[in-house]
Amino acid sequence: MRIGVLGAGQLGRMLALAGYPLAKEFVFYDMSGSPSVGLGEVIVDREGKYLDDFLSRVDRVTYEFEHLPVDVAEKLARQKIVHPCPRALQVCQNREAEKTLFGQLGIPTPEWKMADSAESLRAAAEALGCPVVAKSVTEGYDGKGQAVLKDPSQAEAAWAAIGHPKVIVEKFIHFQREVSIIAVRSEDGDVAFYPMAENTHHEGILRYSIAPAPGLQPAIQKDAEKYIKALLNELNYVGVLTLELFETENGLMANEMAPRVHNSGHWTIEGAMTSQFENHIRAVSGHALGNVAARGISCMINIISEHGDIERILELPYAHLHLYDKGERPGRKLGHINVLADSYEELIWRVRNCAQFLPGSPEFKNSLATRG
Amino acid sequence: MRIGVLGAGQLGRMLALAGYPLAKEFVFYDMSGSPSVGLGEVIVDREGKYLDDFLSRVDRVTYEFEHLPVDVAEKLARQKIVHPCPRALQVCQNREAEKTLFGQLGIPTPEWKMADSAESLRAAAEALGCPVVAKSVTEGYDGKGQAVLKDPSQAEAAWAAIGHPKVIVEKFIHFQREVSIIAVRSEDGDVAFYPMAENTHHEGILRYSIAPAPGLQPAIQKDAEKYIKALLNELNYVGVLTLELFETENGLMANEMAPRVHNSGHWTIEGAMTSQFENHIRAVSGHALGNVAARGISCMINIISEHGDIERILELPYAHLHLYDKGERPGRKLGHINVLADSYEELIWRVRNCAQFLPGSPEFKNSLATRG
Repeated sequence: MRIGVLGAGQLGRMLALAGYPLAKEFVFYDMSGSPSVGLGEVIVDREGKYLDDFLSRVDRVTYEFEHLPVDVAEKLARQKIVHPCPRALQVCQNREAEKTLFGQLGIPTPEWKMADSAESLRAAAEALGCPVVAKSVTEGYDGKGQAVLKDPSQAEAAWAAIGHPKVIVEKFIHFQREVSIIAVRSEDGDVAFYPMAENTHHEGILRYSIAPAPGLQPAIQKDAEKYIKALLNELNYVGVLTLELFETENGLMANEMAPRVHNSGHWTIEGAMTSQFENHIRAVSGHALGNVAARGISCMINIISEHGDIERILELPYAHLHLYDKGERPGRKLGHINVLADSYEELIWRVRNCAQFLPGSPEFKNSLATRG
Repeated sequence: MRIGVLGAGQLGRMLALAGYPLAKEFVFYDMSGSPSVGLGEVIVDREGKYLDDFLSRVDRVTYEFEHLPVDVAEKLARQKIVHPCPRALQVCQNREAEKTLFGQLGIPTPEWKMADSAESLRAAAEALGCPVVAKSVTEGYDGKGQAVLKDPSQAEAAWAAIGHPKVIVEKFIHFQREVSIIAVRSEDGDVAFYPMAENTHHEGILRYSIAPAPGLQPAIQKDAEKYIKALLNELNYVGVLTLELFETENGLMANEMAPRVHNSGHWTIEGAMTSQFENHIRAVSGHALGNVAARGISCMINIISEHGDIERILELPYAHLHLYDKGERPGRKLGHINVLADSYEELIWRVRNCAQFLPGSPEFKNSLATRG
């Protein structure tokens, strides 16, 4: 079976590395003009001329990013099986649609309002109570197109900074930590849930994911499973779906979802019985799902901006290096390291030891360290 | 770094899958006319016209099989770094040279003699005492070019069946089981040893490898490490080396070595901290070696001749499928399954359960089952 992947970055690369052992072949469709996938066949098509050619070459279609125009996804879905479905893309591309769906399915979120001008942004900030976070309703990711308002008087400046005709305004919530759940649904409707991860961001970019999330109450994992299962079933979704959440004193609140394999699931390559990448390929190919159980305790460390001392990292007996074969650039994800351990205490020591060879890495803060 | 691999079969495929996450790229050089690697760049060159072109494209050279002409390897080594060294190839291509080297390094082997005619084969069989195994001194593998003599009178027929001008005659030994050790040596001379595997062959082809080998005495592992280390250092070897041995009442006896990643090490993909494939790539690229410790207990099951019921195998929560994307053919290796467990009892049950979906698989016999 030949799988067509829309997008040709590191997620596509890791999908292919997981898919070859299942006898899948890959064709990547790149709209950026700078594919980095480094394996498989790549069709570079900035002007959208070769989409039909791409389609004729593949048996099924999936994607590694959610910024594909929905009309393109729908066109594809009329000719080939496309997983996940275009509706999932549509929801994920629009924060209003996403939060509305969360509400319809009983998934708690921070309070939110829409604004379409500086004045209505100010009014929303006043009504919700500052601080609030304003985000462009479409097209934002990795902290871009966002502004925090500490006071309604900052509405004018925030509006100008975001520069988008429609924004969602969310009440700032006090959370204990950021977490995510990754689930996978098969064509037969089977669903499997990975253990949740605890995520640490820095300058809007994910830096560390620990899984299973330390000290997580089983009831919290169950809540997250209930929420993501509701999304999967409502969307008749096939493949891997990620839901980012805040853990608060009052339980979980959903932040956003991603209709794809996710950076906070990279730990699954060595840290779970079946990686998120293999499970996505299994699902979109119509196979049974693989075992999602954790193997030990993992922390994924992102390699951002510069590679650091790769040779020293390769010497660490508990570190698994995954490079994306990309050039260095500020803020760019160049690879990740999966650190394995048998206890959280050991894990923290190992992650700190490993991170010292990554000069750009922020201090490893996590819920264990702050508790301890 | 771009690594040139001589050969383009499943071993090259698995080397590439392990090498991409280390930011390696791959060019395969295929002399068979039927490459099956399925990824990377492949130069098909049955007539040996494009070897210089291949060399100009790569930074370092390694191989996935030992049947490369030594003069070709030596030519390559004058222009690029070639790991392992051509001398290792030379030794592995000639059973007389191999057994002679074993003897020089104090590695025990069954008693052996050379023969260059039916008469000298008969004399060797009489001197050693039947049964004996006669093998062509070069070019044999997977049980081909071999004959068992139960009586010296069978010399004429055996000589004709082997059809080679020179044979090695080995005394048949009573062994408890077949085992192998895989080791890796870095450019700096560091050496690491995987836990030994217990191997079961059927019709001359490896079927099952259990690792770590059940019930293995630590002293036996130490002996095997001593033997393979002597070979690695004597050959100034860089990369993965495999030594196949018999475990007898009187300790280990060496059978043969392979200068490459080996089928009896496929369990390391999920069953060890670092796979044999990654460690070979690390070594030939000049990096530090990875951790060779086992993760739990593994059994590798080869998929031979036909694929069996792949969909059912994908449903097993403890099975990891590795397909080579090759067409079915009698005796052909099509893939393997790594079965993981926490105990040998659990492993045996799981392997039997998995093997029922592989119609060509022989009964799973192993030292545990016969002891139990």
